[in-house]
Parts: sequence; structure tokens; C-alpha cells
Amino acid sequence: MTTAFQRIVLFARQRTGSEATNETLHALRKLLIDWGHDVLLEQESANFSDVELPTIAVDELENSCDLAIVVGGDGSLLNAARSVVNADIPILGINRGRLGFLTDIKPQDLKTQLKAVLQGQHWEEERFLLQAELIHGKQNSVIGTALNDIVLQPGDLAHMIEFTIYIGKQLVASHRADGIIAATPTGSTAYALSGGGPILHPSLNAMVLVPMFPHTLSTRPIVINADKAVRIVIHEDNETPPCVSCDSHGRVPIQPGDEITIAKLAKPIRLLHPQDYNYYQTLRAKLGWEAIPQG
Amino acid sequence: MTTAFQRIVLFARQRTGSEATNETLHALRKLLIDWGHDVLLEQESANFSDVELPTIAVDELENSCDLAIVVGGDGSLLNAARSVVNADIPILGINRGRLGFLTDIKPQDLKTQLKAVLQGQHWEEERFLLQAELIHGKQNSVIGTALNDIVLQPGDLAHMIEFTIYIGKQLVASHRADGIIAATPTGSTAYALSGGGPILHPSLNAMVLVPMFPHTLSTRPIVINADKAVRIVIHEDNETPPCVSCDSHGRVPIQPGDEITIAKLAKPIRLLHPQDYNYYQTLRAKLGWEAIPQG
Amino acid sequence: MTTAFQRIVLFARQRTGSEATNETLHALRKLLIDWGHDVLLEQESANFSDVELPTIAVDELENSCDLAIVVGGDGSLLNAARSVVNADIPILGINRGRLGFLTDIKPQDLKTQLKAVLQGQHWEEERFLLQAELIHGKQNSVIGTALNDIVLQPGDLAHMIEFTIYIGKQLVASHRADGIIAATPTGSTAYALSGGGPILHPSLNAMVLVPMFPHTLSTRPIVINADKAVRIVIHEDNETPPCVSCDSHGRVPIQPGDEITIAKLAKPIRLLHPQDYNYYQTLRAKLGWEAIPQG
Amino acid sequence: MTTAFQRIVLFARQRTGSEATNETLHALRKLLIDWGHDVLLEQESANFSDVELPTIAVDELENSCDLAIVVGGDGSLLNAARSVVNADIPILGINRGRLGFLTDIKPQDLKTQLKAVLQGQHWEEERFLLQAELIHGKQNSVIGTALNDIVLQPGDLAHMIEFTIYIGKQLVASHRADGIIAATPTGSTAYALSGGGPILHPSLNAMVLVPMFPHTLSTRPIVINADKAVRIVIHEDNETPPCVSCDSHGRVPIQPGDEITIAKLAKPIRLLHPQDYNYYQTLRAKLGWEAIPQG
Repeated sequence: MTTAFQRIVLFARQRTGSEATNETLHALRKLLIDWGHDVLLEQESANFSDVELPTIAVDELENSCDLAIVVGGDGSLLNAARSVVNADIPILGINRGRLGFLTDIKPQDLKTQLKAVLQGQHWEEERFLLQAELIHGKQNSVIGTALNDIVLQPGDLAHMIEFTIYIGKQLVASHRADGIIAATPTGSTAYALSGGGPILHPSLNAMVLVPMFPHTLSTRPIVINADKAVRIVIHEDNETPPCVSCDSHGRVPIQPGDEITIAKLAKPIRLLHPQDYNYYQTLRAKLGWEAIPQG
Repeated sequence: MTTAFQRIVLFARQRTGSEATNETLHALRKLLIDWGHDVLLEQESANFSDVELPTIAVDELENSCDLAIVVGGDGSLLNAARSVVNADIPILGINRGRLGFLTDIKPQDLKTQLKAVLQGQHWEEERFLLQAELIHGKQNSVIGTALNDIVLQPGDLAHMIEFTIYIGKQLVASHRADGIIAATPTGSTAYALSGGGPILHPSLNAMVLVPMFPHTLSTRPIVINADKAVRIVIHEDNETPPCVSCDSHGRVPIQPGDEITIAKLAKPIRLLHPQDYNYYQTLRAKLGWEAIPQG
Repeated sequence: MTTAFQRIVLFARQRTGSEATNETLHALRKLLIDWGHDVLLEQESANFSDVELPTIAVDELENSCDLAIVVGGDGSLLNAARSVVNADIPILGINRGRLGFLTDIKPQDLKTQLKAVLQGQHWEEERFLLQAELIHGKQNSVIGTALNDIVLQPGDLAHMIEFTIYIGKQLVASHRADGIIAATPTGSTAYALSGGGPILHPSLNAMVLVPMFPHTLSTRPIVINADKAVRIVIHEDNETPPCVSCDSHGRVPIQPGDEITIAKLAKPIRLLHPQDYNYYQTLRAKLGWEAIPQG
Repeated sequence: MTTAFQRIVLFARQRTGSEATNETLHALRKLLIDWGHDVLLEQESANFSDVELPTIAVDELENSCDLAIVVGGDGSLLNAARSVVNADIPILGINRGRLGFLTDIKPQDLKTQLKAVLQGQHWEEERFLLQAELIHGKQNSVIGTALNDIVLQPGDLAHMIEFTIYIGKQLVASHRADGIIAATPTGSTAYALSGGGPILHPSLNAMVLVPMFPHTLSTRPIVINADKAVRIVIHEDNETPPCVSCDSHGRVPIQPGDEITIAKLAKPIRLLHPQDYNYYQTLRAKLGWEAIPQG
């Protein structure tokens, strides 16, 4: 069998002892080798599995692999996505967690659905990431990137932050709040949704800003063009340094007076779906809507 | 003074007896004539004012007027916008109602702000409209157009409708609800906002669907690409015909089994703002946010 | 078999042609007669069933029946409750609609659960009703009573009402809104919940006021002591008369300048539950919460 | 002048350097001594002011003082309230922060409003507190008391907690959420309101449970009888210990497997208001509602 996906790298970053994930890695290894692919294991994933495969570091993926397959839940795919975005290789998820928005293929469907995808029966979708930068005095530094969301949240002792949002040079609003979530369309169905944000269709070039527990009750989520950079100025008189996390990772502390910018990363990830993928079907299943089709 | 806006048509559709509106029309007439413009009054607006001006019907505006000036509140501008969209002339609002999102210039600022706009110091923004069509059996008919929102709402006796939403050929969700609001970015700060929808920046090519009082509590507003048409199928077993309104006008009854499509109108309106217009400032003022700028 | 419930009246007010309801009435008749009860059919319910039973009008129930059994959904029980509240007889629901909050017993469990209830193994709970009165000039008249909610809603042509809420002599708030829901704890899980209201445990002597689509975005539902009467003054300058409905029935038009008072009815209904009734279990099932008990 | 409030203790626990608070303490000292009262300063408050007054510890207040006057914002009154609840003395707030729900008298109105209150023209209102206890294995210990709210929130590294709520022996719901707020009516207009909870009138014997950022989107705030104890079981499989705070103080870490009980404290505080106090007026002012009274 010839394929566009000759060399495939496997990712898995489950909690230690997740037997199910390990099992799926073994099954994947066997199938992929049987089907004539070269199979590698991402270096850190090797800590979570005893599958015997040559390993490869994420910074060697570019021009060396044709596809990344992630075994796990949405969290695992978020992790892998941030790793492969620079290598510009497509990514596909095998679901081993709860029902996921990003990991479409069930382990029992490897022989049919995975095979079809590898044979070219797939649908490729671009999903953009956000990048957070810290401006401390005159120094800029990257905080991190996120496929779902970048969250400004309280530090250890307080639960209220005072900050001001700018878009370009325009002041949007000053907030006294627990923080704010900046979510991509991908992340709009994750943490931002629990916080009262809307669902953004993945095809939108937009991000949503969702203030968390705002003091001003007339505050509402706001959806803006993703090509606009958001600037968050942390007021000088915050007593405790808040922090920023990317896809729930990191918690980088921010000093009063510092600024954070949140902007779209130029390169998107390339997410592969089986050909019968249906975004709204996933939405209905995940959110527990009743589907009573008619007409 | 030469200007791109030689012939100007005035609109006003206030409740009878709105003395303030009439007063502003008189002031406008005098100023515009003094400044060398040709001034006309839209035909139906003549019912609401005793200002002496030649009248013109809305279907004669195309190629005959260079600018429409609306005196009133946001409701008046919505009405005028639907009238001028085909004539492709820009529109400017003089505020005589409550603080408005669309009518920027205050009557006391005519001599300064209006003059500046007419001299070319303005900022032109496109705002798109939605159009609702009824599909009854094999017949299609236009229900109306809206700059703010198209609303499916209950008829006289019931307050619950059963319907299914499709985007393209994809089923989105079936609802038992009081109805649904489809709002443009312009309308996202109007009725949809009261119903729990997000704010959409006017530059977005998106619309938001906000189900009203949905039975399924996990239902959320969803923001989609405005280039996608939305199809709403009214279930056969609704006992009372619901109805559709456009910018709060019309209430066209819909039969069980009928379909409604909501799609972006090809031609946008061209909304003129003074050069110092700031969307977020209007937002903060209208929504009562406290602005405590810093940094 | 001796029982406290010697004479039993059956209620059913389903849509014509609901075969399932009729079937359950037949089954009930047979079982109850076998068990030695006197069985009657409420007069209007006779229009919806061909079961052969002597009929009785609702105003003859007092001192003549010991129990009302309602076959249907929550809507049917609401109707029957308003009918029996003056007769002071307990009420029990057999579920023939969707899963209900008020109708506990499934048709397949009649022989076990219903028998146990009739033998005294039940739990009686009081649920209070609200009564709406219209004050037009110097005249007072009863609009209706409600076990779930009393709703002020728009009339035919408009969707916005201006009104002011008072509790006792204290002004609470003036609203520009689509209306307002005043719900009992029983009704807090019905329409008010879709409108953003909280769940009120049925044991609370409280009602919740939920403004519908309020213009002022900082408006919130407010829970008050049910012994306080609420007064709603419809502003003189509403152009279209709004209307009031009780448990989704009625739609009585209200003139601008009129007042509505909403107060607790002195007599509650007596709702019977099987002994293993669990309010929170019903809540979890109806609202689709996942129950993952631990500890 | 004779008065029921012969001995008065002053509280102030502002941030160091709050000159305004110190100024008001000086003014209060002079006025109260002029009016013939014995004036004391609470011991710890002495750290925040240079006013010369004999000090007294909070555990000596019982039977020794007749009134506590708090200078500051709502936060200061919350602190003082927890201190005086056991001493059973009434408490009165002088506002030196932002507009407060609990501190009614403005510094400029001391000579009129405070004098009137001290002469008996006041309205005394009971407000209950909640107490949180930790059950760790077979050991119970008090975590703290709160006039506003008790909050279960994430620890340092995670933002999601798995826990189950019981009321009495009844399971209410299992949650995956950022935490949960248990608020008194007093606290219903504080943090819980930002989180989507309803307003509870202070006269209600009720508390509201508001889950924070719940994964299950159909989760809603629930209002229960305040005489019921709430039990929260922290699931064994939480990886990071969450913590509990009382009125935003404390952050006591909780181990996976531990339980927290939240119950009403037997003794309420006695809050004094000027005779013209109007709860709804404060609400309208604090929440920015427009008051357009009519009728």
C-alpha cells in the first residue's frame, strides 16, 4: 500500500498506569507495521508505554514524519498539537479518554476508520493556536501557546484581579474579576463554555474573551477577530501576582504593572478527521442535546 | 463648499408628536442648505414632521442621493437602513432617542461633527444584513431583511415551539424553546444580548444563534460563519403557528412543516461615523461598564 | 381492604386521542375497583376517555372524595391541582407524558407502587400556589391561580413591556423587558429555569422573580419570602397591552396603568409521593446531571 | 443623653495607610465622647490607626460592650461580624470603602444619622452566618465561619475538582467543577452573584449553592433551607488538594477523601440600620439598575 503518510509518529501522554492507552499503542504498532508504515514513538511518550518502537524528539519531527497519531483524550491531543505545530505535520486522534471533541476514532474502529484515513479518505481542517507573551518593563518573552485557551487567573492568596483589556490601541474594558479566558474556536467548547461563553464554529477566524466572575454584572463575553492582538494590563495595585496558563498548563506568575499580549500564532495545526466527521454531531453528543431530527 | 455628499435625504420615523425630532429636522434643513447641499425628505418621514422639503420615495434613491441622514434612535436607523441598502448610499445617524449604538452624532454637535463628516472627515463601515425566506411546500418567498436580528417567536396562544436547525445540510440541534434569535454583529448588542448571547465585534463576518428559553439546559448560543445559510424546520406537530419578525417588525405567521432560511444579504449598508468614533467606548457607555484605564 | 382513600376521583386532560392515557385509565379503574375503592371520573376528563365511570364536577369534590389521581404529564397535574386545591384532597400523579417532576408513578408500577400508596405507605408534601389579581382603577378581580408560575408577557405586536415591581410598599425595580416570571419552588424547575432562574427546594416558603430578556444587563433573578405580595405596575406609556398567564393558561390582557398583584394562596395542595420518593434523584434525571456518587 | 449603647467598641481593619479611615475614627471618637458614650478600640484595629482610645480584645466583648461600630467597607464589616457574633452585640457600619451592602452610614452623615441610631431610631436585622467543618477520617474540626460565603476552590496547580454534594443523607449531585460557593442571603449579592447565583432577600432562611465553572452545562444554582447541613465529599482521585475559604479568608487545604460540612451557625449577628434603610434601594444603586418609579 502506498500512502502519503509513510512515516508516522505516535504520541501518548496519559497518567502512568493507563493500561488502556498502552494497549492501543501496541495494537496501533502492529497494524501500522502490517500496513507498511514506518512507526516511531515520540520521546517523552516512551515514559508512558512499554511498546517497542524507535523514539524521536519533537524538535526532529519536521521533514521527518508525515503524520502524528495521538492516543488519549482531548488533553493529550492539545499537548501533542503544541508540539507538532512547528513541524507542520497533520495530527489524528484515537480516543482513549472521555468522549472527545478532538479525538475522533475509537480504538475498536482502527481497522476500518484508521485504515480509511491512511488511504486518503480523510478531511483536513486547520485549527489556529494562540500565543501569550509577557511584557515586563521593556522585555518581551513568550509564555506559551494554546490550542484551547489562555487564562489569566488569580495567584495563591486572592481571588480578584484588576486589569484592563485593550485591542490594538483601543481600550475595551477595565475589570475587577477572577480573571479572563481567551479561547480559540477549538477552546470555545472547553473551559470558556463552563464560564458562560458561546460556541464558536471551528471555521471562524475569531477568539472569544470570557471574563471570570466579573464584579460588573453587565459584563458579557465578546467575540473578536482573531487577527487582532489582545493586550491585558495588570494594574499596579494588585496585591498578589496573578498568573497565566496555556491549555491549563504552566501558571506563569505575572507582576502588577506587567502586560500580557495574546495573539494568533501564524501557523495552524492540521487536524485530520474521518470523512464522515460531523462537528455538530460531536457537539450534540458532548453537550447532551437531544437530537430529534425532522424534515 | 464642494462635497461628495451633494444631495442628502433625511429620514425620521418617530412616534407622532416627537417635537425634538421635528426640531432637529428644521435645524438640519437650515444648516445643510446654508452649507450648499440639496436636501430632500424621505416620503413617509414627511408624515412625522412639518419641515418644508421636497420629498422622495425610497425606491427613487438609487443614483439620485449621495447620503441618508437619519434623525432618531437606533430603531429609526434600522428602518432607514433596510430602505437604503439597495440604493447603495451611505447612512449617518443623528441621535434623538436614548443613547444609541448606531446614531453617533448628538443634535448639539451638528455644527462641528456633522460638518466634519460632510467635509470628508469620517469613517465608513460596512454592516451586513440578514434576509429571511419562507419555504412553504415548493414555494419560496421573502419574509424580510434585518440589520439587527431575525426572530422566530411563538404565536398567540402558546409559548413553546418545536423546531430543528440545520446549517447547510448538517443538523445542528432540535429545540423545544420559545424561539430563536439569529443576530448580526450589529444586532448582537440588542435583543440577542438580553437573551444571553455574546457581543460580536462589527468587523466579524459571523452571526449568532441564540435559542430563547430552551428546554434543554445545556443549550448555548452558537456563533457561525455569516456565509452559511441557516435553515429552521418547524415541526409538524406544533399546535399553534409561530411567527417570524425582522428587526422587531412584521410577525409573519409560519405553518407547521414550513421552513425558514436565514442568509446574509449580498449588499451591506455603509454606515458613516465621525472620525473619533470608538466602538468600545459606545459599548462601555451603553452597558454601564466602569472604565478605569491604566497603563 | 380498608383505606383512608375510599372514594377516588380520576383526572386526565390529555390531547384527544392519547391512547396511552385512556389505557391507563382502564387499568386504574379495574385495579381500584378490585381493591374495593369507589371510583369516579372528573367531569371534563370524560371528554378524553371512553372509560365507564360515574362522573363528578370539580366543585362537588369537597367532602365527597378522598384522593385525586391524575393520569398524564406535569401539565395535567398542574390543571388538576388548581381544581382540587379548594376541595382539600390529596393528589397523586401517574406519569403518561415525558419524565415528570410531579407525576411519580409509572403505569407499569401501578400494582406495586400505587397499592403501597393506597395502603398508607406514602409521603405527603404541601406545595403552595400563587394567585394573580388585576387592579384596574378601583376594581380588583382574580386572574387565576398557578402551581408553577404566573407570567407577565407581551401582547400581540410588541415584545417589550415597561413595568415596575413593588414588594409591599417598597419599589424593587423598573424594567424594560419581555416580561417577568413569578415562580413557586414547584415552578422553579419549569419555565423559570429556562429563563435563568435558580432551583428552589420545594420545602422553601419562597418565590422567585425572573425578568425575561431584561434591557438592563445587571438584572438578576431575585428570591423573596412567599408571604410577601408582589405588585407589578404596567406603565402608562406601553403601546400594546401585555397579558398575564397562570401555568401557561389564560393570557388575560392587561391595560397600561393597571396593576397586578401576585400572592400566595392560603391553601396549599397536598401532593402524595411513594415512600421512596427522592427530589434530588428526579432533579438529576430530568436535568441530565451525571450522578457519580462516592463516599 | 441616656442610651442603650453606653459602651461602644470601634473596629477598623483597613489596609495600612488608609488615611480616610483613620480620620473617621478620630471624628467618631470625638462625637461619641461628646455625646457621653464610653469608647473603646478593638485591639487589632489599633494597628491601623493612631486614634487614642483604650483597647479591648474581641474575646472580652461579651457583657462588656453594647455596640460595635465598624469603619470601612463590606469586607471590614464581615471581619468584625465574625468577631462579635459570639458576644451578641449589635453592629453598625460606617462606609469608608466603595458603596457597600452592609455599611449604611456615610462619614458626612455621622452627626445626623449616627446620632439618630444611637438615640434608638434604628432598625435591627438578624443575619445568619455559616460554619464550615472539616471531617478528616474520624476527626472533626472547625474551618471557619462566614457571613457571606464558604467557597471550595482549587489548590495551586489544578483548576478542576471532583466532589459530591449531599444534603442530609440525600445525594444532590456529583460535580467536576472549579469549586462551589455556599452563600447566605447576605453573601448572595457578593461573589455568588458574579458566579450566576440569584439574589436572596436577607429575610430568607435559605442558602444558595453555586457551582463554579461546572463541566455539566445543565447545572444550576440551587436554593435550600438554611437549616439543612450541606456535606461535600472530595473524591479520592483528585490529584491536587483543593481548599476552603470563609468570606475570602483562610484557604484551608482539604485532602482527597475528606468531607466538609456547611451549616448555619446558631447565633446570628444583629445588624443595625438607620430607620430609613431600604434594601432594594441599596440593591438598585449597587447593581446599577435604573429606577423609573411610576404609579
